[in-house]
Amino acid sequence: MTVPSKLPRLFVRSPLRASTEVVLDRDQTHYLANVLRLKPDSYVLLFNGADGEWCARIDKLAKKTLTLVVEHQTRAQEDGPDLHYLFAPIKRARVDYMAQKATEMGASVLRPTITHRTIAERVKVERLEANAVEAAEQCGILRVPEVHAPQKLAEILKQWNPERLLVVADETAAVSSPLEALASEAARPHAVLIGPEGGFDPEERDLLLSKEFVLPISLGPRVMRADTAAVACLTLVNAVWGDWR
Amino acid sequence: MTVPSKLPRLFVRSPLRASTEVVLDRDQTHYLANVLRLKPDSYVLLFNGADGEWCARIDKLAKKTLTLVVEHQTRAQEDGPDLHYLFAPIKRARVDYMAQKATEMGASVLRPTITHRTIAERVKVERLEANAVEAAEQCGILRVPEVHAPQKLAEILKQWNPERLLVVADETAAVSSPLEALASEAARPHAVLIGPEGGFDPEERDLLLSKEFVLPISLGPRVMRADTAAVACLTLVNAVWGDWR
Repeated sequence: MTVPSKLPRLFVRSPLRASTEVVLDRDQTHYLANVLRLKPDSYVLLFNGADGEWCARIDKLAKKTLTLVVEHQTRAQEDGPDLHYLFAPIKRARVDYMAQKATEMGASVLRPTITHRTIAERVKVERLEANAVEAAEQCGILRVPEVHAPQKLAEILKQWNPERLLVVADETAAVSSPLEALASEAARPHAVLIGPEGGFDPEERDLLLSKEFVLPISLGPRVMRADTAAVACLTLVNAVWGDWR
Repeated sequence: MTVPSKLPRLFVRSPLRASTEVVLDRDQTHYLANVLRLKPDSYVLLFNGADGEWCARIDKLAKKTLTLVVEHQTRAQEDGPDLHYLFAPIKRARVDYMAQKATEMGASVLRPTITHRTIAERVKVERLEANAVEAAEQCGILRVPEVHAPQKLAEILKQWNPERLLVVADETAAVSSPLEALASEAARPHAVLIGPEGGFDPEERDLLLSKEFVLPISLGPRVMRADTAAVACLTLVNAVWGDWR
């Protein structure tokens, strides 16, 4: 075993301050007590998306609840980019993946977006939240993105705040270099929209391209799966406008 | 059903020219005849990584072999970037994923790279090849990357052609903007190396950073899983040096 051992890291909904108690739910208790077999006086890291990251000691271990005492802060809260991520839900496993990846890429808001070609069973917001939490726990991220309820693309565009630039991957983009297209706009609050496999239908594409707040960019000459396009597009906006500078 | 129907697309090892016959193997026959239930005179697309993409007609359908007649070329061969992709193999499902993603991102060569912290069962070259083929089939890619046998990082570096720049994701990179770091070098044959989960060990990092052909870049302030880092890094090199311009 050569990988350095790390403290387990859990997202909780309680406030975190020195000396407060945190009572874990059944699933998290099961994970620490039965999967990791931690004993009282072991340490774990806790974060809640608002108070930074804290080291906490396992105090009491009952059958279905585990109580921790928060000791000291290990990291101050960090907020990450103001980056909304809109995506057409696809098959279940890939939706999970897209929520995880967007979290790793620092998205602040996840918005499932229903397009004409969206093929998906009912999107479960709780499932997206669970995936975002899991990615944040595993990747040391302090802010879990907010998940919105699914909404139709046309509705989303109708209510859009035009101050926020909406970057859309579009193979017909006029400027073929995505870096040039992004650099042509000043950094401002932004969002990325990833369409369904098979692309937007012509009516949706026309609607998108008619909006002044939409910036179409090209993602190169190869077709990519939607989840690959998502990471690629988020990488480019982070590198040009975001916190990868 | 609103997604436009597409012809099935298969990678084959035979030469492709008008009027030649192609006999499919058992698995591909099963896929076309039993999964897709195609009948004689149906059309499929074939590519072999050298002769472009061709439309072929199902001619004979026997129990275990299916014979096609190649009719006309639908796309000329395209080669994509001279981009080697080195990666420390990780858990099996994620290795599959990394091979698929690198293919979508246009890698020409996949090199499993054994590091001190690599945790992986024996890497199967055939399995990586199968994943690369699958991604190429599904994403309309004409060139399937070549897969090398796994090799130790130190050996790879010893035999490295210094003309080829090796981009390494490294959180301690001196220049924090990956775009600036990449733009500081002229476009030339290049490679991307993605380390294991947990990172390179200190000795390996020192070895890498001692090489003149190594360009360390930062991938932002958040930790990412190795497969996310792979797509992010390949996106940046394609956007700055490759065929996303």
